[in-house]
Amino acid sequence: MIKAGIVGATGYTGSELLRLLALHPEVEISVVTSRTEKGRPVAAMFPHVRGHIDLAFTDPSVKELAVCDVIFFATPHGVAQSMMAEFIDSGLKTIDLSGDFRLNDVDIWEHWYDQKHACPELIEQAVYGLPEINREKIKEAKLIACPGCFPTVIQLGFLPLLEKKLIDTRRMIADAKTGTSGGGRAAKVGMLLSECSDSFKAYGVSGHRHLPEMQQILSEAGNADIGLTFVPHLVPMIRGIEATLYFELKEDAGLSLADVQAIYEQRYENEPFVDVMPSGSLPETRSVKGSNMCRIAVHQQPGSQMIIVTAVIDNLVKGSSGQAIQNMNIMFGLDELLGLEQVALMP
Amino acid sequence: MIKAGIVGATGYTGSELLRLLALHPEVEISVVTSRTEKGRPVAAMFPHVRGHIDLAFTDPSVKELAVCDVIFFATPHGVAQSMMAEFIDSGLKTIDLSGDFRLNDVDIWEHWYDQKHACPELIEQAVYGLPEINREKIKEAKLIACPGCFPTVIQLGFLPLLEKKLIDTRRMIADAKTGTSGGGRAAKVGMLLSECSDSFKAYGVSGHRHLPEMQQILSEAGNADIGLTFVPHLVPMIRGIEATLYFELKEDAGLSLADVQAIYEQRYENEPFVDVMPSGSLPETRSVKGSNMCRIAVHQQPGSQMIIVTAVIDNLVKGSSGQAIQNMNIMFGLDELLGLEQVALMP
Amino acid sequence: MIKAGIVGATGYTGSELLRLLALHPEVEISVVTSRTEKGRPVAAMFPHVRGHIDLAFTDPSVKELAVCDVIFFATPHGVAQSMMAEFIDSGLKTIDLSGDFRLNDVDIWEHWYDQKHACPELIEQAVYGLPEINREKIKEAKLIACPGCFPTVIQLGFLPLLEKKLIDTRRMIADAKTGTSGGGRAAKVGMLLSECSDSFKAYGVSGHRHLPEMQQILSEAGNADIGLTFVPHLVPMIRGIEATLYFELKEDAGLSLADVQAIYEQRYENEPFVDVMPSGSLPETRSVKGSNMCRIAVHQQPGSQMIIVTAVIDNLVKGSSGQAIQNMNIMFGLDELLGLEQVALMP
Amino acid sequence: MIKAGIVGATGYTGSELLRLLALHPEVEISVVTSRTEKGRPVAAMFPHVRGHIDLAFTDPSVKELAVCDVIFFATPHGVAQSMMAEFIDSGLKTIDLSGDFRLNDVDIWEHWYDQKHACPELIEQAVYGLPEINREKIKEAKLIACPGCFPTVIQLGFLPLLEKKLIDTRRMIADAKTGTSGGGRAAKVGMLLSECSDSFKAYGVSGHRHLPEMQQILSEAGNADIGLTFVPHLVPMIRGIEATLYFELKEDAGLSLADVQAIYEQRYENEPFVDVMPSGSLPETRSVKGSNMCRIAVHQQPGSQMIIVTAVIDNLVKGSSGQAIQNMNIMFGLDELLGLEQVALMP
Repeated sequence: MIKAGIVGATGYTGSELLRLLALHPEVEISVVTSRTEKGRPVAAMFPHVRGHIDLAFTDPSVKELAVCDVIFFATPHGVAQSMMAEFIDSGLKTIDLSGDFRLNDVDIWEHWYDQKHACPELIEQAVYGLPEINREKIKEAKLIACPGCFPTVIQLGFLPLLEKKLIDTRRMIADAKTGTSGGGRAAKVGMLLSECSDSFKAYGVSGHRHLPEMQQILSEAGNADIGLTFVPHLVPMIRGIEATLYFELKEDAGLSLADVQAIYEQRYENEPFVDVMPSGSLPETRSVKGSNMCRIAVHQQPGSQMIIVTAVIDNLVKGSSGQAIQNMNIMFGLDELLGLEQVALMP
Repeated sequence: MIKAGIVGATGYTGSELLRLLALHPEVEISVVTSRTEKGRPVAAMFPHVRGHIDLAFTDPSVKELAVCDVIFFATPHGVAQSMMAEFIDSGLKTIDLSGDFRLNDVDIWEHWYDQKHACPELIEQAVYGLPEINREKIKEAKLIACPGCFPTVIQLGFLPLLEKKLIDTRRMIADAKTGTSGGGRAAKVGMLLSECSDSFKAYGVSGHRHLPEMQQILSEAGNADIGLTFVPHLVPMIRGIEATLYFELKEDAGLSLADVQAIYEQRYENEPFVDVMPSGSLPETRSVKGSNMCRIAVHQQPGSQMIIVTAVIDNLVKGSSGQAIQNMNIMFGLDELLGLEQVALMP
Repeated sequence: MIKAGIVGATGYTGSELLRLLALHPEVEISVVTSRTEKGRPVAAMFPHVRGHIDLAFTDPSVKELAVCDVIFFATPHGVAQSMMAEFIDSGLKTIDLSGDFRLNDVDIWEHWYDQKHACPELIEQAVYGLPEINREKIKEAKLIACPGCFPTVIQLGFLPLLEKKLIDTRRMIADAKTGTSGGGRAAKVGMLLSECSDSFKAYGVSGHRHLPEMQQILSEAGNADIGLTFVPHLVPMIRGIEATLYFELKEDAGLSLADVQAIYEQRYENEPFVDVMPSGSLPETRSVKGSNMCRIAVHQQPGSQMIIVTAVIDNLVKGSSGQAIQNMNIMFGLDELLGLEQVALMP
Repeated sequence: MIKAGIVGATGYTGSELLRLLALHPEVEISVVTSRTEKGRPVAAMFPHVRGHIDLAFTDPSVKELAVCDVIFFATPHGVAQSMMAEFIDSGLKTIDLSGDFRLNDVDIWEHWYDQKHACPELIEQAVYGLPEINREKIKEAKLIACPGCFPTVIQLGFLPLLEKKLIDTRRMIADAKTGTSGGGRAAKVGMLLSECSDSFKAYGVSGHRHLPEMQQILSEAGNADIGLTFVPHLVPMIRGIEATLYFELKEDAGLSLADVQAIYEQRYENEPFVDVMPSGSLPETRSVKGSNMCRIAVHQQPGSQMIIVTAVIDNLVKGSSGQAIQNMNIMFGLDELLGLEQVALMP
């Protein structure tokens, strides 16, 4: 059994790791840390794991966590980078769900996160944990930087045509919509049910931290400058992200919608967690609720050159904790589906 | 007092007319029709109007409705066109909330609505009831074709720059999101709370009836061909539409975001129901819930030429019944705000 | 015009006073206070009142507020009692929406609110602002203690039979359900949409502050000891309270359900804001959303002696701010309906 | 592998059987029937099972279903009784999720369901499938009548004290609240998101079909007449039932709350799917969302003799499809937890 430690397990990505790992046949949750809840039984805080998890929160320390084979950081940005070096030195495998190691360029990181990076020397070692592009590197990695939730679904939506250099990369638009769990478990007035239920809005319109992450990954994948406009919106639901992508093919691409469909199907035919639906399908977020699946459909409107891609994930599963476990499975040579075979909860 | 009749008052636009007209100081609701509910007291069906409305539903007939000064059609498409000629002949003022008379071109109408138009000869008389562009014509109109809910907010979002020919009209994108009341009060599995709550999806991606309406109005306003991509989405909320618009300025436009903001403010400074918020604001649908207001904000992302406009309305008020009453106020020479001064219900 | 001041207008009862008073034909909002938001325009915080209210928040002080004719306290408990004496001395009429002056017995207040009462000498002057029992006293009052939201609807549900001494008062049960706005606008994890949406729970099962308030009022109304069990529940909706009341008639009461219905109708026939629906009706909270109405229905199950009463209000209107304005109207000799004639927002 | 057939798999209990059985290690879904969807791939209707279930709907017929070892009826009442005899004759094990075989007394059944029972001769053979009272009988059963969703949670809440004859059975109250999936997947106006979201109401106040079922089971369990009042309510959420139970102990019971807690813990200590939480806990429906667990807590208010029990289940799992599988596991001598170990989806 793989012994897993979770640093910062009181937030949503942490509790989702608990839910998923509790039933993973090859993993034993050994240490669960929280500074604020130290000593409290996990099941007292999260009644849904009563009967499944019989641990108490402990202080996060390398000593405590040294019994583990793998450490998940389910912490706000800034935390993993402050602790990571010691873990890496101890030879532990580490998977960071925060934004600390996603960006190659420290200056860009420091600009968007508005703080000094505590551990720039490890950035180069970090492997961006999107298995659909980095599976081989993940196998050898010591430090995984899990993708952001928006970048996961948006990148999966752009990749097939982008990798083939068929997209006009000057104008790519990603209009994304997320449930409130994307905002975390912190008490904020704007995330109260009274404030965001029965309403809808755009936010982060003038700039969001996931934008430079996507620019980096997409420009590598397309070997081109990326003119990406990204607007996130807040949906009155708990889980799920839907992204509607708008772009044009290069003028000489000469592809029909059926060609586009074929390219998407081919790109993902061996991917266990990307489901290319028939062209014109309308993916709903509930079709992936609680599951690690990304569902994608491609569309075109009559008389228009625009390609429209609609894609959905569960932000807490494929968008974070499920994808983290998918990375772990790859790192340890396990079947990539282990612990991740849930059927979505619908209705 | 103006005597008003409502044809088809059992749906959401009909019941919203009831709510608003019940307190309009210059209107008396005289006749409320429904074939299926004939004889039933309105307040038995709609308990929220108990104490406000003391009528029973009657059969829709010109004879019955002839006592009225104005007739609202809150009916599915196809109904108003089958009854309209008689009403017009009787000299009544009519306001159609359905799509029957919005499109100038009968062929386009018949293509998108997939049926024969029953009264093409009246299309020319119909005035498109968007007061922000047609106020003078509305004053003289006998037949108002109220705009669709999506076209109302999307057009208000594009107009200021489009009218000044500053937009690159080849690539205009409207990513719109609506509450479920936009789907009407008919029993459909897909609109059950169990089916669409806690979920999100795009629909109508390959084409929606509001697209030709917008192409017509926007091409007139901009005196140009319009390359518009429009994707509606379903939000798990009752009321409200948010539209996020993406477009580029013409290369020689030479406008800063502040210039854009000024153009929007100037365009709508005398409009009682369009509120241009400070640049960078994030309009929420709840800020207009139950009110006739449209709130708009303009944005730009660092390093990008794209102009982003976010705009919200209540689909049942400014998107239909409230706008219908705004048209009525104009037709009868009343203060345009009468009966429409509600403050949005927030939280 | 009556000049009104609102102390603590950043919460939900405060913003609801803004919404309602903005359109009250005899009231001018003169002062709006908030220590934390001092200097900020009200409309910057609450975009739904843009165009309706053109004030900025000021510090709460007797000097500032002395221009007013009436002061509303929309503050957490403990605040009104600390400021009230000065206002009363200045001859101002005051309406407290908090729990500070609802209980006659200081010891009971201090037990349930777990703090020392700062102004016990004014308790006797306070009039409990439930117009349906205290209209005459309200006319002369200087200090109104507005009822709690749960007590308003539960008391209205019990009063008709209780006042006639027809209820077995040893076993009265009130199973109540509230929307989240009852919990206020403070940032609390448990009130996040992610935490309380798509879920349901009882809370305060072992005791809630509204219990002693109801025991006091109901025992006065019934001139008897009251054996009341009260359990509140949290509903994933914004506004509304539904209460289901269970009780038996006294053995010698000899009343049919029709008799009970008649007693309810008679009791409230002159009450503008209590609507007794036909027996067996199923009041929904949305039928009063945004309105000051309380709707009530009585029921009985076959073979059972139990009387079941179901009743609904909007917790922010009849349950607090609307009722406060109803009190103000009575205090100033105005038509009791002024500013309170809204039709509920449905759907 | 056990071959399972599902009759009527287009509703919510049917699709929930699909979700749960798809991952059951000892079951293979062999036949899935629907008259209306005959020939359509299951995954085309239910995209959440794409990749998990590769069957098409077929017509329901004994011939088709004869390959199965067990048949689940996920049909409206009236269907199972019309087909059951043939299946029983063929020696198949059958599990009926509808109300057809729950009531012992045909007259009572015909009164409440308002139709003639088509197969009264099989009622005696039917075993009421609440494992917590009937585990031994279930092992030998040919025909399981799965309990209703409300009866499941309400009965589990009453049983421990009732079986010990400690309850005053003259006055038992069950105030229950359900999510909308309890109303099924049929298109009904009242279940539209626009109609029941952001609202709350009681329904069935004058009588509900689950009342006679509970009277039968509880009077057997307590060997006494049961004076039960049951009021269901509709909550704007998809899954979950919360029941708040009110009752008094017999005068000579002489039990403290701690005694009551001990009796509940003892009663369910070996039950894998009943979790007695610490006294005073507040069970939330989300703590069992998607899982087969029932969570229960007991309470008392100061100065009151009333015992209050709060209990939650997922109506589609422990309230129907999960419990059906629990019955199947028992019938086939499998580990009772197989296929039912899901951790609830929270948040």
